[in-house]
Amino acid sequence: MLRWLTAGESHGPALVAILEGLPAGVQITTDDVSRQLARRRLGYGRGARMSFERDELDFLGGVRHGRTLGGPVAVRVGNSEWPKWAKVMAADPVDPDELASLARNAPLTRPRPGHADLVGMQKYGFDEARPVLERASARETAARVALGSVATAFLSQALDATVLSHVVELGTVRAPAGSVPSAGDLERIDADPVRCLDPATSQAMVAEVDTAHKEGDTLGGVVEVVVWGLPPGLGSHVHWDRRLDARLAAALMGIQAIKGVEVGDGFELARTRGSAAQDEIERREDGLRRTSGRSGGTEGGMSTGELLRVRAAMKPISTVPRALRTVDVATGEEARAHHQRSDVCAVPAAGVVAEAMVALVVADAVLEKFGGDSVPETRRNVAAYLDQLSIR
Amino acid sequence: MLRWLTAGESHGPALVAILEGLPAGVQITTDDVSRQLARRRLGYGRGARMSFERDELDFLGGVRHGRTLGGPVAVRVGNSEWPKWAKVMAADPVDPDELASLARNAPLTRPRPGHADLVGMQKYGFDEARPVLERASARETAARVALGSVATAFLSQALDATVLSHVVELGTVRAPAGSVPSAGDLERIDADPVRCLDPATSQAMVAEVDTAHKEGDTLGGVVEVVVWGLPPGLGSHVHWDRRLDARLAAALMGIQAIKGVEVGDGFELARTRGSAAQDEIERREDGLRRTSGRSGGTEGGMSTGELLRVRAAMKPISTVPRALRTVDVATGEEARAHHQRSDVCAVPAAGVVAEAMVALVVADAVLEKFGGDSVPETRRNVAAYLDQLSIR
Amino acid sequence: MLRWLTAGESHGPALVAILEGLPAGVQITTDDVSRQLARRRLGYGRGARMSFERDELDFLGGVRHGRTLGGPVAVRVGNSEWPKWAKVMAADPVDPDELASLARNAPLTRPRPGHADLVGMQKYGFDEARPVLERASARETAARVALGSVATAFLSQALDATVLSHVVELGTVRAPAGSVPSAGDLERIDADPVRCLDPATSQAMVAEVDTAHKEGDTLGGVVEVVVWGLPPGLGSHVHWDRRLDARLAAALMGIQAIKGVEVGDGFELARTRGSAAQDEIERREDGLRRTSGRSGGTEGGMSTGELLRVRAAMKPISTVPRALRTVDVATGEEARAHHQRSDVCAVPAAGVVAEAMVALVVADAVLEKFGGDSVPETRRNVAAYLDQLSIR
Amino acid sequence: MLRWLTAGESHGPALVAILEGLPAGVQITTDDVSRQLARRRLGYGRGARMSFERDELDFLGGVRHGRTLGGPVAVRVGNSEWPKWAKVMAADPVDPDELASLARNAPLTRPRPGHADLVGMQKYGFDEARPVLERASARETAARVALGSVATAFLSQALDATVLSHVVELGTVRAPAGSVPSAGDLERIDADPVRCLDPATSQAMVAEVDTAHKEGDTLGGVVEVVVWGLPPGLGSHVHWDRRLDARLAAALMGIQAIKGVEVGDGFELARTRGSAAQDEIERREDGLRRTSGRSGGTEGGMSTGELLRVRAAMKPISTVPRALRTVDVATGEEARAHHQRSDVCAVPAAGVVAEAMVALVVADAVLEKFGGDSVPETRRNVAAYLDQLSIR
Repeated sequence: MLRWLTAGESHGPALVAILEGLPAGVQITTDDVSRQLARRRLGYGRGARMSFERDELDFLGGVRHGRTLGGPVAVRVGNSEWPKWAKVMAADPVDPDELASLARNAPLTRPRPGHADLVGMQKYGFDEARPVLERASARETAARVALGSVATAFLSQALDATVLSHVVELGTVRAPAGSVPSAGDLERIDADPVRCLDPATSQAMVAEVDTAHKEGDTLGGVVEVVVWGLPPGLGSHVHWDRRLDARLAAALMGIQAIKGVEVGDGFELARTRGSAAQDEIERREDGLRRTSGRSGGTEGGMSTGELLRVRAAMKPISTVPRALRTVDVATGEEARAHHQRSDVCAVPAAGVVAEAMVALVVADAVLEKFGGDSVPETRRNVAAYLDQLSIR
Repeated sequence: MLRWLTAGESHGPALVAILEGLPAGVQITTDDVSRQLARRRLGYGRGARMSFERDELDFLGGVRHGRTLGGPVAVRVGNSEWPKWAKVMAADPVDPDELASLARNAPLTRPRPGHADLVGMQKYGFDEARPVLERASARETAARVALGSVATAFLSQALDATVLSHVVELGTVRAPAGSVPSAGDLERIDADPVRCLDPATSQAMVAEVDTAHKEGDTLGGVVEVVVWGLPPGLGSHVHWDRRLDARLAAALMGIQAIKGVEVGDGFELARTRGSAAQDEIERREDGLRRTSGRSGGTEGGMSTGELLRVRAAMKPISTVPRALRTVDVATGEEARAHHQRSDVCAVPAAGVVAEAMVALVVADAVLEKFGGDSVPETRRNVAAYLDQLSIR
Repeated sequence: MLRWLTAGESHGPALVAILEGLPAGVQITTDDVSRQLARRRLGYGRGARMSFERDELDFLGGVRHGRTLGGPVAVRVGNSEWPKWAKVMAADPVDPDELASLARNAPLTRPRPGHADLVGMQKYGFDEARPVLERASARETAARVALGSVATAFLSQALDATVLSHVVELGTVRAPAGSVPSAGDLERIDADPVRCLDPATSQAMVAEVDTAHKEGDTLGGVVEVVVWGLPPGLGSHVHWDRRLDARLAAALMGIQAIKGVEVGDGFELARTRGSAAQDEIERREDGLRRTSGRSGGTEGGMSTGELLRVRAAMKPISTVPRALRTVDVATGEEARAHHQRSDVCAVPAAGVVAEAMVALVVADAVLEKFGGDSVPETRRNVAAYLDQLSIR
Repeated sequence: MLRWLTAGESHGPALVAILEGLPAGVQITTDDVSRQLARRRLGYGRGARMSFERDELDFLGGVRHGRTLGGPVAVRVGNSEWPKWAKVMAADPVDPDELASLARNAPLTRPRPGHADLVGMQKYGFDEARPVLERASARETAARVALGSVATAFLSQALDATVLSHVVELGTVRAPAGSVPSAGDLERIDADPVRCLDPATSQAMVAEVDTAHKEGDTLGGVVEVVVWGLPPGLGSHVHWDRRLDARLAAALMGIQAIKGVEVGDGFELARTRGSAAQDEIERREDGLRRTSGRSGGTEGGMSTGELLRVRAAMKPISTVPRALRTVDVATGEEARAHHQRSDVCAVPAAGVVAEAMVALVVADAVLEKFGGDSVPETRRNVAAYLDQLSIR
């Protein structure tokens, strides 16, 4: 079973994450992780911070000479802006006079609608929002992507599985139905400004971003994550919380700003007649196969061995340039919300985060079914299972 | 923290469920639970089994004289059909000759598309589908509804919270946007043949069921669960898996046949501009309030104190009267899938199951935040929190 | 990963337990479980209840025709005395007048020292001890033994492992150092009145029980559980809570009345010089072996492949015939504690409970390392691991 | 609920630990944590490494201006020796020639009896022991002590509870029965060379260490942890794994080299008659009290409100100067085990680690019972509970 925790604040010294339960022998380097972190900064419509932020990265434990050791893997993603924040976000007490003189330290008393600000202050008993937003910030997803890249490496090495995301909706623009990438499309998708598979749709999406930018607004969208190469039988129908679809839903909904999750055709299936909503079974040269992929590659909460396909809907960035109405909690007066960032759209990057979450969930399900304390052991168990499937 | 497990097969002697972690002093009776189980059988479009199935119910532990004891609550939902299945589903070995003579025991070798049948056989090493479908069956949701009714009682008694579901889409018929029930609408909704709030929509839905029935087809739909009376601060932004939205997503996606989950306006939000997608904050007589409910009552993964609102999309019943193509795993030949049941639509009942899952998740989040080993203790902690909120 | 919950009160209708996560194909019958439950009633020095209590047993789910199905296994242990208690322990409300007339229902307001009575009332807000002691009673261990017998069957069938307990101390009588049973000694031990391996010690233990009985007193003791046939590498050194020894310690200390736990020579090792406290490694025909068993078969929190050996110390039964001093919580006056049972010694039976807990922990560790959804799959993974150990 | 993970290797760049679930507002500074880490290096009989090791410490997240933020707390304990190990323990691949030239990188093929070396290699598929021993090393306990110091601060601030350890046995020397420190004894104990409360015993223990040192041997011992100030009702009798004693047993047994755990008088209780083994209940001015502390402050697996008292038995350090017999796994030949360190005795330091584990378990139990997202909230809930106890 995989367990993992992330820690760190947006403007703190670093994000840090620990992944416990991974087998030994997974090949991974800081370059591999850095590449994934760089992908998280991709996407037309990102503001200034993304470009000047360099993720300073190191493993603090669990990896030696390019291979995992079987113990917890710890990764640190440093904050290149830390010197500017060293007083404001210091762990230890700082002279109050000195703090008072720092503009960055001014209390954030106008909670932003759509953010954790207000309820976070209420829950944790804070009188301003900084202690909340520092942790609620999407910056934290860098830690997830770092761990996800380790999980992805494991999936690749133990199963030859590949995880990939693409943008299927951005604002009101939607990719044509059925445009599912193949495993080799990763580079092409990453090269696209909005990480969309279809060039014409991509152009329309870029135009949508430009318009929103001009109008001082922000956009949401939908990303799809696909996984090739999974065996049948990950997850289980026997208990709701062991279902792969349930675990994927939690992992995707647990990403900042995600408000909806689908497996396969999802909501569309609910509007389809039963006779047209299933994937029929047929025998082909390579064995029993489904004739379509409506279910997204799960049946009864288990991977079927077909392409796994899930979607997440991201609401538009809440911090809109035209600031929203709120209340100043220090004075009780009506106010305009703090405005801190200016991305128009973070959907392309959300796909990379979603890949990480999917990879972590799937890796966990692989270890649950196949066990193994080293990549060769897990790989051997997978191979023996596939080899001896009596029905296939 | 709540933990719970369900067990039992569709045609076994009973379903049984245990809920661990609930405070003492929750008032609950077998009648209360029976009423919820009866609601699970509601809905236009259900087949014969629903009407003849009487849920024989008893608590095996954890409740005395109408109140929980603080220990695990165990509930048994008997199978009134058990005598017919006593040999086929016997726990102990049965004389093979006797079994061979029973039609009900015939091996199910034509896995049904859209069900756990095929992959369940592969995963667990069975040569026929009965051991899979007996557990994968939606009959298991009776155990969840039983436990959910205990959780609902707790929420009502510790927080004065109310949980309610209604059908917002059925097949291609959709309720008008913004038709959100109020806490008193439960009876009216249950009295509606499709558990829909809007009478005109209900009529159209009933017609849709009739048409599908005539055409030998099945229908899916979308249910919405709403919860009134939650305090701000359930769940947390500090770690993805403590987010209330993530936990709700898992719980809903973990229901049989659910393929999509939304919080608040969900996917629709992804298509809305940021300036129109948030809920602004204003001061009213009763404190800080959001001016709208687009977010579904969560921000940063925490309840805001506004109405909680989540949706689940159910695919149409997979066992369509016009049987789907499959392969007979005993012979390897093409075949038509087993056909066992003939409900046209289970969406109204799915709402009741979704209520149960939501109640269990919310009760867990309440205990996480407020603790308490008795209803008065939890209630006292909630009241003190609300009373001493410095921002409200 | 195995999860399991038990429920039920001592005088309630039944105990019930669910075990989730077990592979399919474990051969188990109600007779197998009954035999283990009967062993739990063994032992010289037990009072009347043990002999008239017949455990009425059935599986409510998870087992069909003598084999597990992969889903949760649910077992019910009925209470043959239930009719006498049906009003007192009724789940639903009972007419107060009727209750008032029942002597069995009299409030227990004199909490017994050494029991959960007093603190349980405080924690859960009860004004008498019945709701506490009904759950705290050692009767609950029947549910654990039932599940443990399923885990034991799994260990036997997937690994050829054997679990066995014996009494090594009873009151002040101690078995000679180094008397470790072999796998075939189970019957002989069960036939011994105090489940002791050494006949002379057994006689002395029986005499100790007789003396205590005469003097109106009770006795504790120490049981040892041994497991043959484990592979090296169960548990892990990489995180404290994955260590097999830590998990065993929790499982044993979690048995009612257990106050101490040792692995191998335990406390005695702390008093031994380092040069004499380890198990040296040597090569034998059958591979690398330890020359002694001081560590109890774990190193670094992992099974070494040698005999696993753990001990649990049980305090004497708290309800002594010479009633202890307490306070009547209804009146605030000094009082003598309620006295309900009269076993002199429950140590022989505690060994059977300890076996169950050990079996459950070890089965969990086996599934963590080897995975597998069916006995053949787990068995194949174990065999491949042992076969391909590069160091052995 | 508290969750926590540690990561890092003994000679890696750092240890790192994350603690999730702690309320906001716990006052803690790096100095506070450093003081605890310094205490971990205390004790007569430690070798050279302890004195030159300075723990370079920083919070990477979760703490701002001396108070926790409610999010995960991350702490990094740097390795001052890292430059010497930067190649040998590099996360990224290193030029093999360069590695081959480094003596420190020589493969460790002679597994040490009593360590994780051999079974760790088998489990994880390594051909030498470095990847195992780097993680299995007791150096990892620094991460636990760091987190434990945060938990201790929480307990102090939310409950006015105090955690303290002392050495009760060292080798064959044993402190007089009943020498239980009071809350103010911490400084005096830390000032004692072997952290023993009784001066005469301390002298004898120092002499025992000197003798063992001269004879090239090592010593184990027993530490006791006591906690003042706990309310009744932490943990629960209702399920085995919620019992406070079970959780403490796991936490203590999960420390490197611990082989036995006791609650209260533990094994001694098993040898005592029932009439003399319990703590009777009486009314005093300050309420219902136990007349003795044999049970160690738990009944039914719950804290009674009396002094909590648990013990852990540490085996002697396995790496004895007179090296033990083993096998070189590279050649298959008999060999003498690697010898790396030369502490005679680590028992005094083990007490500090045990304090940390106890503090983490107790803090978890406090949050389970009382909830709370800030210190004032938890404190308020505790106070209201104690205030309204109907039985006390």
